[in-house]
Amino acid sequence: MSPVSPEFQRMIDLLAKLPGLGPRSARRVALHLVKRKDTAMRPLARALEEAADAIRACTTCGNLDTHDPCSICSDNRRDRSAICVVEEVGDLWALERATVFKGTYHVLGGTLSALEGVGPDDLNIAPLIERASDKTVTEVILAVDATVDGQATAHYLTDRLEDANVIISHLAHGVPVGGELDYLDEGTLAAALKARRTF
Amino acid sequence: MSPVSPEFQRMIDLLAKLPGLGPRSARRVALHLVKRKDTAMRPLARALEEAADAIRACTTCGNLDTHDPCSICSDNRRDRSAICVVEEVGDLWALERATVFKGTYHVLGGTLSALEGVGPDDLNIAPLIERASDKTVTEVILAVDATVDGQATAHYLTDRLEDANVIISHLAHGVPVGGELDYLDEGTLAAALKARRTF
Repeated sequence: MSPVSPEFQRMIDLLAKLPGLGPRSARRVALHLVKRKDTAMRPLARALEEAADAIRACTTCGNLDTHDPCSICSDNRRDRSAICVVEEVGDLWALERATVFKGTYHVLGGTLSALEGVGPDDLNIAPLIERASDKTVTEVILAVDATVDGQATAHYLTDRLEDANVIISHLAHGVPVGGELDYLDEGTLAAALKARRTF
Repeated sequence: MSPVSPEFQRMIDLLAKLPGLGPRSARRVALHLVKRKDTAMRPLARALEEAADAIRACTTCGNLDTHDPCSICSDNRRDRSAICVVEEVGDLWALERATVFKGTYHVLGGTLSALEGVGPDDLNIAPLIERASDKTVTEVILAVDATVDGQATAHYLTDRLEDANVIISHLAHGVPVGGELDYLDEGTLAAALKARRTF
């Protein structure tokens, strides 16, 4: 007989499915929570329920927010002439933390992947082409990951955006700020050297 | 302005406080959940709420279960002459997974710690002394961690159990099953050699 009651086990099983957690860390999290029922466990349960009710995908850009259009799309101070295309909402957050981009975003929801059977129709691509074809849009920045699938997606989007009459750009490759040359791969170093800038 | 809505941020903050998670992994978990509202997010919220309602500490041994006394304490097939003392419920689960101990347990809820200001009154010790003084109990196994605090707790318990007229034992030190000698510290190797057994 298992020493763990079914209610407990169910909670552990659900926790164990979260990214970065396994059965062992899920047990640890479950015990941590049960010891703090009123300060951690019930607040987390309520926060999850409330977020599930409140958060939706923006029909314009695919960002996750409590409003639709999202706070970025509905912000009049944002520059509507530039659309930054990202794979996931987490990438959008990362760029917003950098506080350097003042345009709008478009979340693809993944990358094209022959291996995983992800085609153009599975991603948020058609609405992007439509948005980019609007006369106010002058530049589309493809901020996709520097992976094979990311780059394949960038090439596909470049083709599809041909008729939209926009500048298509991508993020610069180079040495990460604070990065040590010794730890960088040759591809990055070659790209950084090729794109060198004068002082 | 943060691109993350307050509901989302609140959920991320609560997730980031869980053991083993930080701000970055909490964001990852939050995005994973929001993408799976009905298959992961709401079920987890409900499971947490249900577990918070159902699970309580056993007043006899301190185990966490939906019943009080817990399923182990109320199981008549368990050997009531032996009490295995553990620090946390997770340790009890680990021993139960080993399916080798058929007695009952006693969960201390931690260890004595001068540094963290944990004294005997902060732990589930008085009820243990009372249980051990019962005539049916013949052995108390101190299955505490082999850490400084764990061993200090074991010494303290040995003193307190002096009048209870029980055999006091501790887990054997030695080479972990499947472990490589090369990776073991000298203390463990010395203990394993001293406690060597004949074939």
